[in-house]
Amino acid sequence: MRRQAERRGQNICLAVAYDGGGFCGWQRVENAKKPSIQGTLEGVLSESFGRAVRLSGAGRTDAGVHALGQVANAFVPCGLWREHGLDWWLREWNSRLPGEVRIQSVREVRAGFHSRYSAVGKQYCYLFDTREVPSVFLRRYAFACGGSLDVEAMRRAAAFLLGEHDFTAFASVMEEGRGTVRRIDRLEFITRPGVLRLEVSGNGFLYHMVRILAGTLYEVGIGEREPESILQAEKSGNRQDAGRMLPGQGLFLEEVFYEE
Amino acid sequence: MRRQAERRGQNICLAVAYDGGGFCGWQRVENAKKPSIQGTLEGVLSESFGRAVRLSGAGRTDAGVHALGQVANAFVPCGLWREHGLDWWLREWNSRLPGEVRIQSVREVRAGFHSRYSAVGKQYCYLFDTREVPSVFLRRYAFACGGSLDVEAMRRAAAFLLGEHDFTAFASVMEEGRGTVRRIDRLEFITRPGVLRLEVSGNGFLYHMVRILAGTLYEVGIGEREPESILQAEKSGNRQDAGRMLPGQGLFLEEVFYEE
Repeated sequence: MRRQAERRGQNICLAVAYDGGGFCGWQRVENAKKPSIQGTLEGVLSESFGRAVRLSGAGRTDAGVHALGQVANAFVPCGLWREHGLDWWLREWNSRLPGEVRIQSVREVRAGFHSRYSAVGKQYCYLFDTREVPSVFLRRYAFACGGSLDVEAMRRAAAFLLGEHDFTAFASVMEEGRGTVRRIDRLEFITRPGVLRLEVSGNGFLYHMVRILAGTLYEVGIGEREPESILQAEKSGNRQDAGRMLPGQGLFLEEVFYEE
Repeated sequence: MRRQAERRGQNICLAVAYDGGGFCGWQRVENAKKPSIQGTLEGVLSESFGRAVRLSGAGRTDAGVHALGQVANAFVPCGLWREHGLDWWLREWNSRLPGEVRIQSVREVRAGFHSRYSAVGKQYCYLFDTREVPSVFLRRYAFACGGSLDVEAMRRAAAFLLGEHDFTAFASVMEEGRGTVRRIDRLEFITRPGVLRLEVSGNGFLYHMVRILAGTLYEVGIGEREPESILQAEKSGNRQDAGRMLPGQGLFLEEVFYEE
């Protein structure tokens, strides 16, 4: 068992932040015009270990989506790994990474740990710029609404999303495997001058689900749909009954939750 | 008098915000590799009036420096100006400007108003990123310190800067005209998790003065100089006695004050 682990390498887990603006998303894509976050990190890790290192990410964030606490794990050669401490590796990798990507922390995890399959939940946030004249500093980090939103109506609508539901209507395409039922544990709006922040956490999210939830709630906020229309979308499972998908630039993967 | 004003045009005053990262600074520069804020705004205003419009800015911010409330005035043709309301012009100009530059407001001012000469004070802020691993989202909007600073020592040093002093030691080159005595009315440090914000307001600032003040206080914050060393720099007027100049990307022109 021990020898097998040595062969496979030490399983390490990284917490990663990135500004997704200049990337094609988390996942490595052949012939993409922009680099991927995964590929960028793998390039640096592979270089530092002198052999190919493959990373598994907890969430495959789309093009333009940001992260404050993406999690990824990888098996690295035990011998070289043990030659240096955690802080040394952190400094070494960050000194080689572009400024848009930063490894926040690194730790050893058991061989059975997988950033995605071991995760029990995630937290995202979506930023709305509610200034009449949008902020020049949020232009790549928020969706510009051009004015204020009816947050009370959005909160009433959000209440219908809490708990376990079939979120088929709020996803871009059907996913294989886990089905389309997910549980939303928390959905809150935090208001600041000129900014509305939607925080949502749950046990999992379908493809594009947070951006479609944000878009549906946005349509409530501008008076284009009633809060109760959420119920119809949940019932029908019809994508047409939910709202538009908002751009990736307003979305941040904040945290991935694990039991241990 | 009235006819002369009509010939000269209506004097209008703009409040402007910009992300200075992609610009050579406020001022138009011949053959610069990057555009200037002034040139970008003048291009849009000139286009909308069908004749050359020249802007006077309150502060000639350097390359990379940002603004939340830069102020600029210009004389525009009375006839065309009066054909539309303030909101119409605002929308028209902002729809033609790049996302990094936004006119926040526009108003009519008396012919004698000059954004720079009528100003009685300015407020700047300088952002320090004090995270050990710098934030990917502040990499173009703060100076990354790589760790926390001794804010109490910085506050003690700041007290020596308040009031009227000869700030020759804190400027890059001697300025003509107004001499080198300026009055600092307020200098405060606001701490947030991972961020230290220096706010400074006064009746005027010499060339590079805020960035050199920030750099001198930073050297106090990392224990490289004593708070009392400020007194020596004020007394000697010697640039060598003040601290380093910090990068422009951490600096924001926040507000320009006028008596009216």
